[in-house]
Amino acid sequence: MKQQTAILHEKATLLRQKQVLLGHGSGGKLMHELIEKVFAAHLLPPDMEMLNDSSVFCVGESRLAITTDSYVVDPLFFPGGDIGKLAVNGTINDLAVSGARPLFMAAAFILEEGFAMDDLCRITLSMREACDQAGISIVTGDTKVVNRGKCDKVFINTTGIGIVDNAVKISSELAKPGDLVLINGDIAAHGMAILSAREELEFESSIVSDTAALDLLVKDMLSVSNEIHCMRDLTRGGLSSALNEIASCSKVGIRIFEDRIPIQDQVRGWCDVLGFDPLHVANEGKLIAIVMRDHAEAVLSNMKSNAQGRQSAIIGEVISEHPGRVIMKTNVGGHRIVDMLSGEQLPRIC
Amino acid sequence: MKQQTAILHEKATLLRQKQVLLGHGSGGKLMHELIEKVFAAHLLPPDMEMLNDSSVFCVGESRLAITTDSYVVDPLFFPGGDIGKLAVNGTINDLAVSGARPLFMAAAFILEEGFAMDDLCRITLSMREACDQAGISIVTGDTKVVNRGKCDKVFINTTGIGIVDNAVKISSELAKPGDLVLINGDIAAHGMAILSAREELEFESSIVSDTAALDLLVKDMLSVSNEIHCMRDLTRGGLSSALNEIASCSKVGIRIFEDRIPIQDQVRGWCDVLGFDPLHVANEGKLIAIVMRDHAEAVLSNMKSNAQGRQSAIIGEVISEHPGRVIMKTNVGGHRIVDMLSGEQLPRIC
Repeated sequence: MKQQTAILHEKATLLRQKQVLLGHGSGGKLMHELIEKVFAAHLLPPDMEMLNDSSVFCVGESRLAITTDSYVVDPLFFPGGDIGKLAVNGTINDLAVSGARPLFMAAAFILEEGFAMDDLCRITLSMREACDQAGISIVTGDTKVVNRGKCDKVFINTTGIGIVDNAVKISSELAKPGDLVLINGDIAAHGMAILSAREELEFESSIVSDTAALDLLVKDMLSVSNEIHCMRDLTRGGLSSALNEIASCSKVGIRIFEDRIPIQDQVRGWCDVLGFDPLHVANEGKLIAIVMRDHAEAVLSNMKSNAQGRQSAIIGEVISEHPGRVIMKTNVGGHRIVDMLSGEQLPRIC
Repeated sequence: MKQQTAILHEKATLLRQKQVLLGHGSGGKLMHELIEKVFAAHLLPPDMEMLNDSSVFCVGESRLAITTDSYVVDPLFFPGGDIGKLAVNGTINDLAVSGARPLFMAAAFILEEGFAMDDLCRITLSMREACDQAGISIVTGDTKVVNRGKCDKVFINTTGIGIVDNAVKISSELAKPGDLVLINGDIAAHGMAILSAREELEFESSIVSDTAALDLLVKDMLSVSNEIHCMRDLTRGGLSSALNEIASCSKVGIRIFEDRIPIQDQVRGWCDVLGFDPLHVANEGKLIAIVMRDHAEAVLSNMKSNAQGRQSAIIGEVISEHPGRVIMKTNVGGHRIVDMLSGEQLPRIC
């Protein structure tokens, strides 16, 4: 007991904060610190890679991937989707970017007393629609109800199980200098769509969330290249977090080019007005892939032929200089370091 | 869209309530109605059995079980355990009573802004201890933070994956007249321990939660009999819900004997004082098994030799009369119907 208390205090003092801050859920630096110093240190087996979107393990001859995510998005219904669609697509995407074909899903609901049954039905029907589109089945679930005021309407957890082909080897540690960075479309739409629907900051725009399942896109990509080294979906923390995680895990530099990163004019406009860096804003239907240079054009052209990849682009390259860093050549010709988000930008974005 | 709206309204009107009630999370009648008319109707594949504690599917040559549970227990720390220990043991038990050997676990945290980092560390260390004891690994996780007042301190979701031996065939549908009902110890301690620690109703007692992992007990039981037809752990809704689910799924009657059901004197005493039926009160380290009559004594003696089964007892039998009903021969010699809990007894018990 004494030993446990000692460990506890040591860990707690490693963290700069004595309390949980919103930033601990941001997808940025604070969250990485919390994961590393509390969750990974206490919970994960020592050999477990903690920054990939899902974990891969072997059962018999099969390689299975597992991923879990809780969804607490506010508001529940927003332009382009709702919490149910997000909860299904987000978990599918975490499996997909690990190279896994999604098979089964578990769904757990925490409901606030007084939540409208009609809204719950809307959300569950939306989940079913997203499952049917992706060909995944929800096979088990759980329901908890807490007293009024003890949660905010509904939180949904989904856990996905997928199967990984034995030939697939994708990990954030495998980026190599010379590789190119591909993206499947324009960034930051989800975050700005959520923001446009927030009560405290409602604004008029036609921005809709990009929430979409990326499993078919990834399946296509894997069919044309066995040299896709890393893949990440660009959720909390946005493009910058995903690139920084890869740069850090692979101990390489990454150089991106601002003028090649697709973004809708009105998304850029609202980011400017509200003071958000679009590289930090969450997406729910976007991924990056780090691909061997010689394969990049073939993968790109394949991505563009996919419904979820029409706007795909090569936005950068992996370099041996600046290991662990992401550098951006800006529109005006200079260079800047693209840092991981520190603090919190948009709580409850997913 | 029109069609979806029509389905939605049809489903919503099937439910008597227009809003989520605390009772929808009770483990009793209302929860079964919600699961059947919303979650199962919208989410589960048509052939899926929804009332077992976990779902079994095949991957390659392997039979895997998956189960998910969110833990919202209040208070977080209580006599005998905490939310972390509960979150690990509860999910292990859901796998165990399906006959699965627990392999891997995913853990997802929803944290309230301002939650004490020391408490989070205490909880994660407690989870690790429970995992180590059961030999299960947490392999992936998720963290969300919501604004102060939008959740209550911390909610934890755990999803477990286990492997089911091909010879094992356990399901709530398989109880047969003549089978006996076995329990591994005294009931209702968890619920009363939680209640004794609630701010609004703190009372002095030495009751501690029975939270414990039952995987080793189940492994032992399965090693002496291949005629264990059903197993359920006795969480929300207590013994009465588990028995009623089996009676209903197997279309049989179940007769139990009040004087054979183990219960601690002080647990019975506090139930009497506070007006709770101990058959409805939650347990976190108890299971019932429906076993072929000829095997029951061997299974019982094996259970008693296990740390989690010292107080095991045969408490009843499966009968062909009264299909779907649970009947109890009371201490005073009469009979009463043991109904599933309707409404809510103890919100946030797990």
